[in-house]
Amino acid sequence: MDRPGLTVTAFDWVPDFAQGQVRDLRPRWALEEAQLPYEVELLPQGAQEEPEHLARQPFGQVPVLTLEGRSMFESGACVWRIAEQSDSLLPRDPALRDACLSWVIAALNTLEPPIMMMAMLWFFESWPDRFGLEDREAPGRLRAPTRGMVDKRLSQFGRALGGRETIVGDGFTVADLMLTSVLLPAAQMDLLEAHPEVKAYYERHSARPGFRKAQADQIAAFAENAGKYQAA
Amino acid sequence: MDRPGLTVTAFDWVPDFAQGQVRDLRPRWALEEAQLPYEVELLPQGAQEEPEHLARQPFGQVPVLTLEGRSMFESGACVWRIAEQSDSLLPRDPALRDACLSWVIAALNTLEPPIMMMAMLWFFESWPDRFGLEDREAPGRLRAPTRGMVDKRLSQFGRALGGRETIVGDGFTVADLMLTSVLLPAAQMDLLEAHPEVKAYYERHSARPGFRKAQADQIAAFAENAGKYQAA
Ligand SMILES: N[C@@H](CCC(=O)N[C@@H](CS)C(=O)NCC(=O)O)C(=O)O
Ligand SMILES: N[C@@H](CCC(=O)N[C@@H](CS)C(=O)NCC(=O)O)C(=O)O
Repeated sequence: MDRPGLTVTAFDWVPDFAQGQVRDLRPRWALEEAQLPYEVELLPQGAQEEPEHLARQPFGQVPVLTLEGRSMFESGACVWRIAEQSDSLLPRDPALRDACLSWVIAALNTLEPPIMMMAMLWFFESWPDRFGLEDREAPGRLRAPTRGMVDKRLSQFGRALGGRETIVGDGFTVADLMLTSVLLPAAQMDLLEAHPEVKAYYERHSARPGFRKAQADQIAAFAENAGKYQAA
Repeated sequence: MDRPGLTVTAFDWVPDFAQGQVRDLRPRWALEEAQLPYEVELLPQGAQEEPEHLARQPFGQVPVLTLEGRSMFESGACVWRIAEQSDSLLPRDPALRDACLSWVIAALNTLEPPIMMMAMLWFFESWPDRFGLEDREAPGRLRAPTRGMVDKRLSQFGRALGGRETIVGDGFTVADLMLTSVLLPAAQMDLLEAHPEVKAYYERHSARPGFRKAQADQIAAFAENAGKYQAA
């Protein structure tokens, strides 16, 4: 091969609540499904604010995907770019391809924002001082209406599934990969319990070998490096 | 032309606070920039919950983009699809193209969610009963920490701009179109005042003739149909 390989940049360790959910999971999973070989670069905590990292990820986050000697950021962008190289993740049929694009963006821009708002309420409640929050009860009081918005989107998604196993065509695509990925924190927060069809969809796709390997690999690195941070 | 034309589906009327901001603005603007002729289909209020509309937009929203006899949803997906047909919006150079993809997704998945959370706090505060919110003061108490998250992202975006007029390469691209689009509600909520560089970027690109025409066309339809809803 004359082209430099694929690399996913991930953290070498994160706190417990985030383990198995950090967003490098998404390009790792996509690369497993696409059967493309890749390497993982581990970023020590703190290095995300270094100029070298900010030059490739302007928000100081992970993941970064390095390919063909240059880098991309945003898990959604990395996953779409990987899918473009895989006929199974992204069908060549133009109608199926357009449907995958719609659903990938729906995952990122319609389903994920209210789910992330639920997560933010939990962050605000758990670390009020870090966020300069004076009224510690306020986040809890917004939980019900925010959950209402999540429920609305999950119901609509369940209706769109209409009993099918995959959202586009007959096989697993990048659309299912991205939808399952944004449902992961919702599952962790027990938000899928009221939506058995969506829960079954999430469980079916997160049981795929590619997801399991991606998640196990992420967690294995954290276990290896935990000592570094506990010592400090 | 043997291919059926392009159509953007928009509402025929929305309440004042949303006028000029409804998301069909995004594909309209992209089509103006790409110089592709298109038609606009106006959806009466209420029709978004009809099965016919839900079949093409599962969340009962606008916009929908109809092209080649089929439809797509999600403003981000529609805009990316339009950009793929335009060498100016989406440069052919692979490195610039990948950078556009990263920035379009950053707009939708990193900048927009905290901006939308600010908007949700305003919705909760303005219509507590509609959202079943008992404590009417709670949304206001979360405004400062939520604004802190918006400020962090806007500062990082300003730093990434680094004084340039466009975020990718030397010309206006789909990345600038999407970033400007997600900044629009932030500008309306006066969140750009603390970020003069981002404000200048927003004002520069939203002054483009394509944006102005798209926004004027959206508002013109609302003015024409206002009587229908005021009478009711
Ligand atoms: N929209 C971004 C979000 C990335 C993100 O939230 N990354 C988190 C880990 S899951 C991170 O790097 N957090 C560290 C920080 O924000 O400083 C994406 O999907 O790539
Ligand atoms: N993520 C979607 C959001 C679309 C959206 O929020 N559309 C609003 C108008 S700006 C809408 O149709 N609201 C009506 C509703 O939700 O019932 C997109 O970007 O297309």
